[in-house]
Amino acid sequence: MKHAPVHYHDYLKLDSLLGIQQRRSETLGQPAHDEMLFITVHQAYELWFKQILFELDSVLELFGNQTVAEKDMAIASARIQRIISILRLVMGQIDVMETMTPLDFLEFRDFLYPASGFQSVQFRLLETKLGLKEKDRLLYNQTPFYKHLPEHQQKLVLQALAKDSLFELVDKWLARTPFLQNQEFDFWSSYQKAVKQMFAGDKETVRNNSHLNAEAKAKNLEMIEASEKTFHALFNESEYKKLQEEGHFHLSYRAFHGALLIYLYREQPIFHFPFQILNSLMDIDELLTQWRYRHALMAHRMLGQKIGTGGSSGHTYLKQATDKHKIFTDFFNLSTFLIPRSKVPPLPANLQSKMNFNY
Amino acid sequence: MKHAPVHYHDYLKLDSLLGIQQRRSETLGQPAHDEMLFITVHQAYELWFKQILFELDSVLELFGNQTVAEKDMAIASARIQRIISILRLVMGQIDVMETMTPLDFLEFRDFLYPASGFQSVQFRLLETKLGLKEKDRLLYNQTPFYKHLPEHQQKLVLQALAKDSLFELVDKWLARTPFLQNQEFDFWSSYQKAVKQMFAGDKETVRNNSHLNAEAKAKNLEMIEASEKTFHALFNESEYKKLQEEGHFHLSYRAFHGALLIYLYREQPIFHFPFQILNSLMDIDELLTQWRYRHALMAHRMLGQKIGTGGSSGHTYLKQATDKHKIFTDFFNLSTFLIPRSKVPPLPANLQSKMNFNY
Amino acid sequence: MKHAPVHYHDYLKLDSLLGIQQRRSETLGQPAHDEMLFITVHQAYELWFKQILFELDSVLELFGNQTVAEKDMAIASARIQRIISILRLVMGQIDVMETMTPLDFLEFRDFLYPASGFQSVQFRLLETKLGLKEKDRLLYNQTPFYKHLPEHQQKLVLQALAKDSLFELVDKWLARTPFLQNQEFDFWSSYQKAVKQMFAGDKETVRNNSHLNAEAKAKNLEMIEASEKTFHALFNESEYKKLQEEGHFHLSYRAFHGALLIYLYREQPIFHFPFQILNSLMDIDELLTQWRYRHALMAHRMLGQKIGTGGSSGHTYLKQATDKHKIFTDFFNLSTFLIPRSKVPPLPANLQSKMNFNY
Amino acid sequence: MKHAPVHYHDYLKLDSLLGIQQRRSETLGQPAHDEMLFITVHQAYELWFKQILFELDSVLELFGNQTVAEKDMAIASARIQRIISILRLVMGQIDVMETMTPLDFLEFRDFLYPASGFQSVQFRLLETKLGLKEKDRLLYNQTPFYKHLPEHQQKLVLQALAKDSLFELVDKWLARTPFLQNQEFDFWSSYQKAVKQMFAGDKETVRNNSHLNAEAKAKNLEMIEASEKTFHALFNESEYKKLQEEGHFHLSYRAFHGALLIYLYREQPIFHFPFQILNSLMDIDELLTQWRYRHALMAHRMLGQKIGTGGSSGHTYLKQATDKHKIFTDFFNLSTFLIPRSKVPPLPANLQSKMNFNY
Repeated sequence: MKHAPVHYHDYLKLDSLLGIQQRRSETLGQPAHDEMLFITVHQAYELWFKQILFELDSVLELFGNQTVAEKDMAIASARIQRIISILRLVMGQIDVMETMTPLDFLEFRDFLYPASGFQSVQFRLLETKLGLKEKDRLLYNQTPFYKHLPEHQQKLVLQALAKDSLFELVDKWLARTPFLQNQEFDFWSSYQKAVKQMFAGDKETVRNNSHLNAEAKAKNLEMIEASEKTFHALFNESEYKKLQEEGHFHLSYRAFHGALLIYLYREQPIFHFPFQILNSLMDIDELLTQWRYRHALMAHRMLGQKIGTGGSSGHTYLKQATDKHKIFTDFFNLSTFLIPRSKVPPLPANLQSKMNFNY
Repeated sequence: MKHAPVHYHDYLKLDSLLGIQQRRSETLGQPAHDEMLFITVHQAYELWFKQILFELDSVLELFGNQTVAEKDMAIASARIQRIISILRLVMGQIDVMETMTPLDFLEFRDFLYPASGFQSVQFRLLETKLGLKEKDRLLYNQTPFYKHLPEHQQKLVLQALAKDSLFELVDKWLARTPFLQNQEFDFWSSYQKAVKQMFAGDKETVRNNSHLNAEAKAKNLEMIEASEKTFHALFNESEYKKLQEEGHFHLSYRAFHGALLIYLYREQPIFHFPFQILNSLMDIDELLTQWRYRHALMAHRMLGQKIGTGGSSGHTYLKQATDKHKIFTDFFNLSTFLIPRSKVPPLPANLQSKMNFNY
Repeated sequence: MKHAPVHYHDYLKLDSLLGIQQRRSETLGQPAHDEMLFITVHQAYELWFKQILFELDSVLELFGNQTVAEKDMAIASARIQRIISILRLVMGQIDVMETMTPLDFLEFRDFLYPASGFQSVQFRLLETKLGLKEKDRLLYNQTPFYKHLPEHQQKLVLQALAKDSLFELVDKWLARTPFLQNQEFDFWSSYQKAVKQMFAGDKETVRNNSHLNAEAKAKNLEMIEASEKTFHALFNESEYKKLQEEGHFHLSYRAFHGALLIYLYREQPIFHFPFQILNSLMDIDELLTQWRYRHALMAHRMLGQKIGTGGSSGHTYLKQATDKHKIFTDFFNLSTFLIPRSKVPPLPANLQSKMNFNY
Repeated sequence: MKHAPVHYHDYLKLDSLLGIQQRRSETLGQPAHDEMLFITVHQAYELWFKQILFELDSVLELFGNQTVAEKDMAIASARIQRIISILRLVMGQIDVMETMTPLDFLEFRDFLYPASGFQSVQFRLLETKLGLKEKDRLLYNQTPFYKHLPEHQQKLVLQALAKDSLFELVDKWLARTPFLQNQEFDFWSSYQKAVKQMFAGDKETVRNNSHLNAEAKAKNLEMIEASEKTFHALFNESEYKKLQEEGHFHLSYRAFHGALLIYLYREQPIFHFPFQILNSLMDIDELLTQWRYRHALMAHRMLGQKIGTGGSSGHTYLKQATDKHKIFTDFFNLSTFLIPRSKVPPLPANLQSKMNFNY
């Protein structure tokens, strides 16, 4: 309490905050009641986007270190959890927006031309810093996405594109995982062997299953073989790299191994936070994707087949972007390669002890 | 499209909006990461409070008319629904706030002294305009609540206190209900008769119920009589007024009748919106009350038994205010006086026709 | 209280309810903790599906009447609102399900073969009774969807398919709208004229807008003309029917008029509930669609690229079905044809009076 | 796939599950539509209560071990998170219930006599196993709470009361915390010293603060001293025990120290899960408390001042129980004794190393 006392109103700068909701419909002489809601919802989004970026930047900094200290893992994880919590919250802002009906929106829609949510630089930065690459984006009006922004904002986005995103930092961190290969244990060859045994066992079980008739057996064996085939690419680095170039994988080969190791041995204390973080990245992707999807549905409801204020093809664009702009798909796909716990190769005791606390 | 084109960034005044998150801990040389969240959450609250007040003011205007046009009923109802939708949303902001731990709060708590949420003039206006009277408020540090505000804000609150609140406008509107008494139908005496018959029938049924032994019968009859007694006050205007003075009722005697009429005959088309609106007022009360309760729990968790930054007794004050600051309690209590549909006196056919559409 | 007393436990038949969570993994000697959650979530879904069907059946009955009484409109609307409320709730059950990780699911997944959510007859009935036609469904393993059900369940679905669904009943009800054409007012020709004037005015405004350069003007005019073109089909019945056959419209021509009338004059008291109901149908569609989408994301996360237990292509099937199985798309698309309130042709006074209460 | 194939319908025992929603109003010849919802909501609650108990029992087992293995900490934490996730979900069931209006409830309320939610043995077990003691419960109709249950259920509750609850197991686990006192570091005396210095510093700062006038200084010093006083009890074991007997503390003296240690040094890897678990216990308490509060509000709305079906004093009882039945209050109160990170005594390096991984 060395400092001057401060009042709530001044601390939050409420004079500024509450003085910037100027309805354009009012300025132009045709006040539309619902434009106020439209402004408030969008300002609330931008406030929260700023907060998300603040947390994300701090996480990027922690993961940008050559080694991430264990203490920092807990901090990074907590901040990612906060981002998730915010994304969950702002999903609900769509419910509020939908209290506006299409006819009410028409009252002021024309006054907004050509403003559009596509022009939110913070949202672009968010996607970019998480790891969305320009080449993976849907083209919008045949021009790169950042061309729709004022020049100084374009610069911000290009700077972000030039730096390592969260995806890339996590990729590097996974590739550094120290337990992939050492004297006591070669994870990759042990896992490969376990997979082979599992499929052999599954086929044997089907063949001996007296509950199934010949047709059902054939169908089951076919399913097992189809499943087995998906593992081939994983066990052949050059095959993997080919699929990577085609866009089926995004993680580096070694990072993929690191992630699988964490998934399969997540009960080891040292993997608790890494596992939690990988899970959280999927949560972020799920929430962003759901939000895009809800946004598309709302746009459809509000505009029908009309084109967007910014000249976009409206809800169709939004729906196409929904899946295409997913970032951490590899972690979803990774489940393809999990095997039941009973089949997972056991870790040598002294390796387990290294993965535990020093106490 | 007579007007100049506008960009998203300028339309939303994002330069101003995103330039006012200044952490005091940073200014004072000890940057605390989580203060940013603290600021964002509170600014988001104030943004939404402004929106709620905007909707509420428009509802007050509609209900301030001598007669409320049927068209306006739909508009008023939709806007009240929007307020509910916003209150539901901002409840979730507490989840985000709770990603901050008590120790993180301690990093910057001292810098805020003596700022406090008690100093939010918008929240005070919201409560006041809904109908919270000064005399019904918990005393806060032994002074009237508005004394904690800067002078020009005190004036705003006093002005709001001097005007009819939503509670008072709804009371007047209910008291004007045109169907309470007319040639074909005297609601109050019909209802009174129905209540009497109901209790007589209930007692008869208990006495004849072979499933119950003497003790159970006695207990049941006692319960019925206790229930019957609560109706006495309702059927005696001077008794009602006495209870009103003691704070058990807040609605005028005639408004209470109007509300009961709407509840009991809510399936009549003309009562659809009135019923929806009375229901919505309870929704608002439930949501505000829950929000206060969650706020109290959060304060307890964050501060333990410490006193608030503004010098309040902390979570104890908040918990006591939770119930005390409820506004539309009468509508909750009204359920005491409902009777089963089969016992409700039927409306004469020509009255029903007046309550229906002209088509 | 003529009846025997009843205890909570017996009333809810809790012995039965709580005795049917039998983990198959336990029966087969390899108890997997998380299978209990898997069972509970699915049973909770089926409980709620039953409740939704109960409400939906009652709405179908009300709308199946030759004329829907105004009182019944309020009841139907309230029950549809309840369905919405339930759909909102069960969306959250996915959050609970996602506390199970892919590796935990693998512990018992094989024991479930070939059970699959595709076999939920209640969900099929729900979709069918809302209005999803067999021809509009995604093919699943090259066979009609009901073939995956036991025979007596197939019969239930075929019966439901043979009856009028909610979509069809609403279509008929809209087509019966009494105000579409009468002596005082011909809605369709008035609306057509208003649309024409609106586009002429819009083009004029662009041409005279000194803020726009030639290129911008050309682009704007192009947008307006594209927009104008979408109205052609609406004003030409044979064109409409052609598009209907191609699947662009599903409502009958006359029902489409009825729906537009309600949207454009929704502030008239007689349209309050009709408008609320049309809105609610979109809410149902949005919620079901979001639920399908979240389900697809969860399946992706749980299984990666593995095929579903029932032999489906897994999350890809689910994602494709998400949009394809939407039912009330026409009401979303209807926004295409809304015009600003200031351009909507005013209703003659005596027609307005017919649309109001008799009082 | 050694086992027989299974169909979704049989796996979930849907014939049983969907055959036990028998409306008593229908059986008694006066079918009330909304009774179906009433049954479904309550059955859904009981399903989820069973699931919560299943998770809770497994957590009690893990914590019942003399030492809790680090691996088990992650499992326990995940299961507690699941309980939280379920509690969050079922809170939303009240929204669905509230689509029933008081008048609709009256249609069948009498048929339920004297069934009551107070008779839910699963909820009683849940509270008891979490740690609610009989002496801390509100008396209900002047008899112990379990007397309202059938005899074999009373036995279940008495058995649960006789065993260690989660509260007691956590208390013992905290008291065992190995780092409270050792050669390198005496937590308690270091902390005590730090607290003393903090208060001395705070007072000095106030005295030297030129922004404050004499009155403000006096008020501030008073606040600091009040705050200092709350620490006295903590530093005096016999004082603590006295307060414990009066019900101000529930944790043992040593467990309180353990909890404080975890709070203050939660960034140490070995405390990550312990901290998460303590936090989760507060989440459970907050959610249960909110649920009770919402339940009380709903009862008020549904019944007004009527007494409950089971003869309880209705919403008043529920509201009083809301706060009184909180279980982990000590962890909330613990925040009283936190001090800012900059004042927390640093840990010796070799102790920190013991709290980290072995790698």
